[in-house]
Amino acid sequence: MGKLTLATAQTIISAAFEKAAALSLKPISVAVLDDGGHLIAFARQDGSSILRPQIATGKAYGALAVGTGTRWLQANAETRPHFVQALNGVSGGAIVPVPGGVLVRNAGGEVLGAVGITGDTSDHDEACAVAGIAAVGLVADCG
Amino acid sequence: MGKLTLATAQTIISAAFEKAAALSLKPISVAVLDDGGHLIAFARQDGSSILRPQIATGKAYGALAVGTGTRWLQANAETRPHFVQALNGVSGGAIVPVPGGVLVRNAGGEVLGAVGITGDTSDHDEACAVAGIAAVGLVADCG
Amino acid sequence: MGKLTLATAQTIISAAFEKAAALSLKPISVAVLDDGGHLIAFARQDGSSILRPQIATGKAYGALAVGTGTRWLQANAETRPHFVQALNGVSGGAIVPVPGGVLVRNAGGEVLGAVGITGDTSDHDEACAVAGIAAVGLVADCG
Amino acid sequence: MGKLTLATAQTIISAAFEKAAALSLKPISVAVLDDGGHLIAFARQDGSSILRPQIATGKAYGALAVGTGTRWLQANAETRPHFVQALNGVSGGAIVPVPGGVLVRNAGGEVLGAVGITGDTSDHDEACAVAGIAAVGLVADCG
Repeated sequence: MGKLTLATAQTIISAAFEKAAALSLKPISVAVLDDGGHLIAFARQDGSSILRPQIATGKAYGALAVGTGTRWLQANAETRPHFVQALNGVSGGAIVPVPGGVLVRNAGGEVLGAVGITGDTSDHDEACAVAGIAAVGLVADCG
Repeated sequence: MGKLTLATAQTIISAAFEKAAALSLKPISVAVLDDGGHLIAFARQDGSSILRPQIATGKAYGALAVGTGTRWLQANAETRPHFVQALNGVSGGAIVPVPGGVLVRNAGGEVLGAVGITGDTSDHDEACAVAGIAAVGLVADCG
Repeated sequence: MGKLTLATAQTIISAAFEKAAALSLKPISVAVLDDGGHLIAFARQDGSSILRPQIATGKAYGALAVGTGTRWLQANAETRPHFVQALNGVSGGAIVPVPGGVLVRNAGGEVLGAVGITGDTSDHDEACAVAGIAAVGLVADCG
Repeated sequence: MGKLTLATAQTIISAAFEKAAALSLKPISVAVLDDGGHLIAFARQDGSSILRPQIATGKAYGALAVGTGTRWLQANAETRPHFVQALNGVSGGAIVPVPGGVLVRNAGGEVLGAVGITGDTSDHDEACAVAGIAAVGLVADCG
């Protein structure tokens, strides 16, 4: 199936930054994780606040934790808040359940990793993740 | 009263997998815990997401924590969310309060352990746990 | 490269148990983790003590954390105790640095996962892991 | 005094990778933190083991924690192990006290951030950090 390489991760980040610039967003931070939830590459734009590394990573980790983008987690946080709270408990507080955590799938549907973005609105963050994943020819799963 | 042996736990897992196959469910993960809350056996089907070990274990642990299946915990999460949040606090984040955590009792009602399943809907997860426990001639308590 | 399937993990566990029986060991526990450090399958033999799940998992996780079997970690714990203590810190206490955590590599040297075993002496634990990995035609890296 | 920008951090990472290639090192991971200890940029080369993000970050954080490179922390770990253990305690396990965590100072001696590298020997890791910092015209403090 192939793995996400560092080069691919860095291209995802660059393309997400280009999308953010095109949309005139506030500074964003981008984390790219492999399929095991481990960081491959991260970049935080100048002027970002200090918890952005954890938020970006927590979105990507949340997507990998349950096997779908974090838009699904946000929907569950509204209908079953106790479930999403419990996911944070069993993960050691590692999950940020709002849009902007997007699974990276290959053409066959296999999960290769996830992208997490934070800094602007959740919808804009997610749009940048989708743009980054599209730039490397892979498939975004927003949940 | 007898304890849950590893052989019994493995039979529970196999029977739960058969039920999942019969229902054409998504990949599931099954944890079997002894009456002290300690893992006896676990299996995660191919294609499962990465937090499934903690979710399955957290359902089984939740059932043992309060002495009834996690369906009871979900009901409490809706009527008394502060109580279920507190259970997560005092357990160090170890409880997942949605259906699919099922106590294993013997004919005399004694608790021998618990089964936790995750991967499909909570109702389907629970049905697999019940099937697994029935396959070894023990009594399922869903809460 | 292929991933460790559940079927392969269960064969590793069975073969490790056969080796333990042949050596007349005390009850052992076996954890098989994927290449991201997530549990695929676990089994704890009857009569084992209660922390064995965490110890077995911690050995396998330790091997994956640094990319070599835990025999290497034990050697470092003697020459650079501050480094191994720090690994436990940054991993949230997830590492058990004694022999018995063995990487599973394919013929090309790629890491597919790890096996962690505990219950008897560390050397015997490791021997069972090696036997389990050999039974599925993969390569054991003890460190 | 100026802060470390993302562009500067990315140049440091690229230059560290060039040094690693020139020395034919094993795959390395590089974390660049700002003066508050927060991640600006990170990259993990293909083939690295899974705990490398935490180890790289822990080296850089350790340097910032005490205001000098982690070579100083390793020396203290040998002469005053209780002190370094206590630093890990009060930091929540965030410090890796071996060489490879290097402070980034400007010409006036002010601390702008830190670089942490892991993957090869600690001495080689440190050499790559020094090369990365030199490439942007700043001053490396190894401790």
